[in-house]
Amino acid sequence: MVTIKEVARLAGVSVATVSRVINETGYVHEDTRRKVEAAVQTLNYTPNEVARSLYKKKSRLIGLLLPDIANPYFPQLARGVEDIMQENDFRLIFGNSDENRSKELEYMQTFVQNNVVGVISSTMDAEADAYQKLKMPVVFLDRTSNDSPAVYADGREGGRLAAQALVRCGSRSITIMRGPEHIRPAQDRFEGAAQFLAESGVLYETLQTNSFSFHEAEYWAAELFNRFPETDGVVASNDIVAMAVLQEAHRLGRKVPDDLQIVGFDDIPLSRLLSPSLSTVHQPAYEMGRAAGNLLIQLIEQQEPPERNIQMPVQFIERDTTRKVREHG
Amino acid sequence: MVTIKEVARLAGVSVATVSRVINETGYVHEDTRRKVEAAVQTLNYTPNEVARSLYKKKSRLIGLLLPDIANPYFPQLARGVEDIMQENDFRLIFGNSDENRSKELEYMQTFVQNNVVGVISSTMDAEADAYQKLKMPVVFLDRTSNDSPAVYADGREGGRLAAQALVRCGSRSITIMRGPEHIRPAQDRFEGAAQFLAESGVLYETLQTNSFSFHEAEYWAAELFNRFPETDGVVASNDIVAMAVLQEAHRLGRKVPDDLQIVGFDDIPLSRLLSPSLSTVHQPAYEMGRAAGNLLIQLIEQQEPPERNIQMPVQFIERDTTRKVREHG
Repeated sequence: MVTIKEVARLAGVSVATVSRVINETGYVHEDTRRKVEAAVQTLNYTPNEVARSLYKKKSRLIGLLLPDIANPYFPQLARGVEDIMQENDFRLIFGNSDENRSKELEYMQTFVQNNVVGVISSTMDAEADAYQKLKMPVVFLDRTSNDSPAVYADGREGGRLAAQALVRCGSRSITIMRGPEHIRPAQDRFEGAAQFLAESGVLYETLQTNSFSFHEAEYWAAELFNRFPETDGVVASNDIVAMAVLQEAHRLGRKVPDDLQIVGFDDIPLSRLLSPSLSTVHQPAYEMGRAAGNLLIQLIEQQEPPERNIQMPVQFIERDTTRKVREHG
Repeated sequence: MVTIKEVARLAGVSVATVSRVINETGYVHEDTRRKVEAAVQTLNYTPNEVARSLYKKKSRLIGLLLPDIANPYFPQLARGVEDIMQENDFRLIFGNSDENRSKELEYMQTFVQNNVVGVISSTMDAEADAYQKLKMPVVFLDRTSNDSPAVYADGREGGRLAAQALVRCGSRSITIMRGPEHIRPAQDRFEGAAQFLAESGVLYETLQTNSFSFHEAEYWAAELFNRFPETDGVVASNDIVAMAVLQEAHRLGRKVPDDLQIVGFDDIPLSRLLSPSLSTVHQPAYEMGRAAGNLLIQLIEQQEPPERNIQMPVQFIERDTTRKVREHG
C-alpha cells in the first residue's frame, strides 16, 4: 500500500503538510495543496484510517454490544445496524456480553482504546455508570434507560395484543410467561398482557422465566404444563419459548390451536416456517437496528435528533397457533 | 482519558521514549524505563490502541466477513470466532457481504484502512484476487480454497450420512435438494449423498436450489412436491429448507416420518424445537468458528500451524423426522 511518506516525497513537502491537506486540519498554501493533491492522485493513495483517526482524533468505528448474537432475535438487530453504518461509511466493532457485567465493561474499555466514535448497546444495564462515563454518544437498542437515547419496541402494546388475540379467540385460562426481570421490554410486555386480562376479567397465571435462551426454553415449556395443566392459552415470552411450548403440547397430545392457543413474541423469520406456523407479535427488529444506527450518527455529527427516545410500533401476526374468528359473523 | 503526553511530562522524558517503553520498540536506559513505568502507574495510563497500532504498525483488530448474519447458521460461527478472539484480546470488525462481490471488496478495503491484522471470511469466492492481494493472513471459514488456510465441515461425509439414514429407515424414492452451485461445501454434501445412493442402487431425483435463504425456502419446498410427488425421503440442503419441507408436508397431509422422511443439514439450535423435531446432520459451527480464529491467530503470530486446512467431523442427529429402526432386532 502507498504510504503518506511516499506522497510527501513526491510532492516535495513534509508528511505533516500532506496530512493537513488530507484532513483539512490547518492552513496550507494553495500551490502546496495542488502539489499534494497531484501526488495523491498519481500514487492513487488511500489515507490510512488509523492515521486519520490520530490526526483528526476521530475514527469511523462504532462499537456494537449485544447479549448474544446466537440468539436468533439479535442478528436482525445487528443486520439493521450494520446496513445503515455501511451506507454511511462507518464500520462496526462487535462483541457479545452474555449479559455479563465484566465482559460488558471489558468491551467498553476496548471500544475506547480503539477510538470508536459511538456505541450501540443492547445489554442489560442501561443505567450502568460505564455508559455515563463514556465521552461519546451511546444509543441503547431494545433496551431503555431513563434519559439515554434509545430505540425499542412498544412492549406494553405487544403484550396487550397477544392477550387480546387469545381472549378474542376463546381462551379462558391463560398463562403469561414472564421474561427476565432485568429486561425492561420483557416487563412491559408482561404488564401489557396482565393489564388487558385483568380489565377483561379473564383468569390468568404467571410463569416467571429468567432467560430467553433456547437451552432453557424446553424446561420452561415443561414447567408450564406441570404447574398449569388447565392452560388453554399461552402468552410466550418470545418465539423460542413459544416453539418449545408448541413442541411440548404436541408431546402431551394437546391440539394446537383447538385445545391450546399460543402467541409468541418477536416474529423471528423462522416462526413463519413452523407447523403450525406461529401466531406472534412482530417487532420490527431490522428497522429498530437501522433507527438506532441513524440516531447514533445524528448524535456523532452533533445534529440534534428529532427524538432521542424512539419507540417502534408492534403488530399482531395471525398465523396457525391461534384460532380464526369471524368478527360480526 | 490520560494521554501519553501527560505520562511523558510526569516522567520528564519525550513521548517517543514513553512509546518505546510501552511498545518495547527500542533501547531505553533502565532508569528511564523505571521513571516511565512509575508515571504510567501513577496516572493509571491505558495505552491508546490506535496510537499503538501506529507505533507498532499493528492493531488488535480482525476483519470478519459473513454472507448474512441474519441466516441462523452464521451467528454460531461468528460467536465461535468472537469468543476465541476475546480470549486472545483481539477485536472484530464485522460485515455482511450478501455474497455480493462489490460489498466484499469494499469491506476488504476498509479492513485494510483500519489496519486489521487478519481476516476471516465466509463469503463466496475463496479464489478471489482480493484475498491474494491482502498482505495479511486470511482464513476461510465454511468455505474452501485450493491453497488458502480454511476451516470447514466434512460435507461429503455429511451428505453420505443423510442419505444413509433415509435408506436405512426405508426410503426408496429420495430427492436430494442441491445447494447453491458456487458454495463448495454444498456441492460436497450433494456428491456425498448422490454417491451413496448410486452405490446402494436407490433411485433419487435432484432439485437444484440457488439459495439457502429462508425467503426462498418455501418456494423450494413447494417445488419439491410439485416435481417429485412420489418422494418418500428428502435430503434437504439445510435446516431452513428442511423446516419449509416439513411445513409443506403438513399442508399436503403427508405424514412425517411415516410417509415422508426428512433430514436437514447444520443442526441449528432451533431444529431440536420443531414438532416433529428435525433429524439432521450436525456441523460443529461454534467449534469451527473457534478453530478458524485459532488458526488465524497462529498465522498472525507467525507460528507455523499444525494444519492450514482443518476439516471438522459431522454427525447424524437422529430425531423425529426419520423413522426408528431396530438394527438386529
